[in-house]
Amino acid sequence: MMQQTPTASLEDLDARYPPNEAVTSRLDRMFYPKTVAVVGASHNPMKWGQRVIQSMLAVPFEGRIYPVNPKGGRILGLDVVCRLQDIPEPVDLVLVAVPPDKVMAVLRECVALDVGAVFVITAGFSEADRSALSVEEEMHRLVSSAKIPLGGPNGQGITCTQARLCAQMFPIMPPTGKISLVTQSGNVGVSMAHMAVYHNIGISKTISAGNEASLTTPDYLDYLARDRDTEVVAVYLEGADDGRRLLASLRRVALQKPVVVLKSGRTQFGAKAAVSHTGSLAGEDRIYDAAFRQAGVVRVYDLEELFDTVSAFAAMPLPRGNRLAVVTMGGGWGVLASDAAADAGLDLARLPDRVRTALDEMLPPRWSKGNPIDFVAAEGPDTLVKTLDLLLAGQEYDVLAVLGVGHQTLAVHLVKESALGKLDLVRRGAEWLMGEDRRKMEAVLSRIQTTDRPIVLASDAALSANSIGNQALEVFRSAGYPVYTSPERALRALGHLVRYAAWRRRTAEQR
Amino acid sequence: MMQQTPTASLEDLDARYPPNEAVTSRLDRMFYPKTVAVVGASHNPMKWGQRVIQSMLAVPFEGRIYPVNPKGGRILGLDVVCRLQDIPEPVDLVLVAVPPDKVMAVLRECVALDVGAVFVITAGFSEADRSALSVEEEMHRLVSSAKIPLGGPNGQGITCTQARLCAQMFPIMPPTGKISLVTQSGNVGVSMAHMAVYHNIGISKTISAGNEASLTTPDYLDYLARDRDTEVVAVYLEGADDGRRLLASLRRVALQKPVVVLKSGRTQFGAKAAVSHTGSLAGEDRIYDAAFRQAGVVRVYDLEELFDTVSAFAAMPLPRGNRLAVVTMGGGWGVLASDAAADAGLDLARLPDRVRTALDEMLPPRWSKGNPIDFVAAEGPDTLVKTLDLLLAGQEYDVLAVLGVGHQTLAVHLVKESALGKLDLVRRGAEWLMGEDRRKMEAVLSRIQTTDRPIVLASDAALSANSIGNQALEVFRSAGYPVYTSPERALRALGHLVRYAAWRRRTAEQR
Repeated sequence: MMQQTPTASLEDLDARYPPNEAVTSRLDRMFYPKTVAVVGASHNPMKWGQRVIQSMLAVPFEGRIYPVNPKGGRILGLDVVCRLQDIPEPVDLVLVAVPPDKVMAVLRECVALDVGAVFVITAGFSEADRSALSVEEEMHRLVSSAKIPLGGPNGQGITCTQARLCAQMFPIMPPTGKISLVTQSGNVGVSMAHMAVYHNIGISKTISAGNEASLTTPDYLDYLARDRDTEVVAVYLEGADDGRRLLASLRRVALQKPVVVLKSGRTQFGAKAAVSHTGSLAGEDRIYDAAFRQAGVVRVYDLEELFDTVSAFAAMPLPRGNRLAVVTMGGGWGVLASDAAADAGLDLARLPDRVRTALDEMLPPRWSKGNPIDFVAAEGPDTLVKTLDLLLAGQEYDVLAVLGVGHQTLAVHLVKESALGKLDLVRRGAEWLMGEDRRKMEAVLSRIQTTDRPIVLASDAALSANSIGNQALEVFRSAGYPVYTSPERALRALGHLVRYAAWRRRTAEQR
Repeated sequence: MMQQTPTASLEDLDARYPPNEAVTSRLDRMFYPKTVAVVGASHNPMKWGQRVIQSMLAVPFEGRIYPVNPKGGRILGLDVVCRLQDIPEPVDLVLVAVPPDKVMAVLRECVALDVGAVFVITAGFSEADRSALSVEEEMHRLVSSAKIPLGGPNGQGITCTQARLCAQMFPIMPPTGKISLVTQSGNVGVSMAHMAVYHNIGISKTISAGNEASLTTPDYLDYLARDRDTEVVAVYLEGADDGRRLLASLRRVALQKPVVVLKSGRTQFGAKAAVSHTGSLAGEDRIYDAAFRQAGVVRVYDLEELFDTVSAFAAMPLPRGNRLAVVTMGGGWGVLASDAAADAGLDLARLPDRVRTALDEMLPPRWSKGNPIDFVAAEGPDTLVKTLDLLLAGQEYDVLAVLGVGHQTLAVHLVKESALGKLDLVRRGAEWLMGEDRRKMEAVLSRIQTTDRPIVLASDAALSANSIGNQALEVFRSAGYPVYTSPERALRALGHLVRYAAWRRRTAEQR
């Protein structure tokens, strides 16, 4: 079980639990394969041995896929080879989907052929029957002596957008990006991928660790720490056999790039469910909590917070401090954002006179005259971007939040799609307003892309943005830039950025 | 400011602050008008005096709308009358959108004509300048002596789905239902309405209280407590002039129907922002908290939790206790749900032998053999509904949760829309699987509709349900039944149901 570790000994942990170079150095062949074999490829479209091929073809994978099945024939238009050794070229990745009692034999063939990497999807090992732990140990001995990385068993599979690889049961492929996920639950990985697809947030890899017979969560973390396609790491964790090793790997990541962990099994019920699910001993939660804090790990508490937070890290620079300015298109959102700012440890710092004076000149007297800056529906087409420019011109604020983006387009859309939209004047007015809103958002995006400070966006209009086609929010969506659906979610994510940045600065000073 | 009030004195509060019958009895004319006049109707489509007419026509309102403007002419196809008194029939609701200095004169005309109710949208009163409080007091004196209910000023307006009335600036009309909202922020009201539209959750009324010159949040609450179209009340609250009166009204609602409050200004930043926004003194948060608990108010902490919680109350019966059974299509979701259950005070009670034995017969040995019930991808088409029937056949559980609904359809949709969908066999298989998933969900819905226990649903597939047209989730959507986007959100809402039901039982015993 994980013990509390004083900061002084973190360097020792690093030395004591170094990355397992022998296997992690070969992981590129797992994630960027040119050839993939599927052993246990099935002619039955309902079996996992075919579903994983469907997933690869759906994306589609551009390398070569070899279904392996002693019966031969064709599956989904691909020629089936009868045995692994019939494949006429070196195999980078072997996916194994044969019944559990046939897995060891396949692994022996993999070793004989010196394949690049193996991932065992087949379930029915230690997660179902603790006595199968000895089989998993045997798997590990076999492949590790041959230095072949082996993922699973009982894993959903892996994906890598840069390789156009969806080597898993669920056929989902997020947009290409720089967030990678290691998960001890396949369906949590699917949830993340689905959120990424829905919000158009870029992902690099998703890794379903399964029973971790050989490759463990710490191994994947050490690989991702150095992976050039990965700039932010997300982890869904139920437990670890060796807490110290996990901590050493997490810290190695945190020193390079943000690592955000959703640790479940926090409660008695959760811990019990984790044992039943993956056989993980969840461990004392307060010990994990202290260890995470020391190691620079960003801890989150639910699935949406995990996604929100990694999206923020991937999209925004690290802030220099916690001084926040809020610009809001609505008073209530501003108040909720103020509470959320306090909760997240952000400082809603006083508006400097130079900004106040400039806004007084630009706006009628009813504007909020403070931070949050609320135009109280008195803004012209340039007010928002001029205000951002004012805020960015000085050094009073480290982070900015803009609330209510794309709301004008939502209102106009609703009128345009109604009976009123038949009136020529209304329709033309609507189109003009939508164009104006889009131009405003383009100007906001240009500031986001040129400043070195985080600008976080939130709007309930983001909820329907990709079902109604909100042209203003499409500006951000197509740039892969997150728009949070509530001020609370936006500022919670921003708080994590601020705290991680402060940890990085402290750690850099100490070293 | 609100003081702590021991339970014993709540009955006294009720007597001391009775509902203001004189005005609230006339509020039906505000929410169910047959004739609406808009004073300050504008020929300029950008002005609020026209936007509110656009909103009404967009829905469209089926009563009669009279734009009032001394210039006459036509606005959006409606004949303009020059003065209020030119309207040839009694006016139920007068919306006022003239400049601030002309409002009092309009109110005098309203009193002279004895109109049903007035709502002043015009801003620029106490929210902008505290000295305007005296004008607001004058408004109140004028209308209350005439017993005319007056909403606003500085309010976004009101909506009532049963009356097809969207008498507000933002043109949004949720589906018809039984949730009503009183909000001290117009844009928070829009956020709620937008979530309702997006998730197809039914709403009755939204009321933007504005500066509460005459009608106050407690007045609206007393009206909603008795409104037959309202079964669940949502409140966004920044503060109250008279905390005791608010408490008395909240408790009157809570004794009849659930009342869920998002109270902002919890923190120093939030309290300051609330003063700037509505002039509200937010008050000591811990005093509100204690008072809410005594009064049976369900307190929530963010916008999404507010919506999630009222959706649950509107859709589900009150539970008899906190014993929860979880059925999950994925292990990780089950673990997260277990933690969330503990956080929400739910008891993930042990699976009784009769259920365990029945599931052992139905499933291969790898199922979770506990609560959460995880089929571990071994389910057949009837497994889910048979499991629900098993759970509902006994009295071991008060509440059920089903995680991962509609996921099969999401997977199949992704394959069908991919390059693979061109293969005949794949397409036919996909259609068959989607039909099967839909039939499964129809069976789940039939259980939901016939049981007297809450069954809460969650699935990340709900995120994209109305953009990809998930036919399985459409079963719930078209029934207006919520599917939460994460297990955590679902169980948080369920926890509120359990606690409110317990309060109702305790209170009933004491009375």
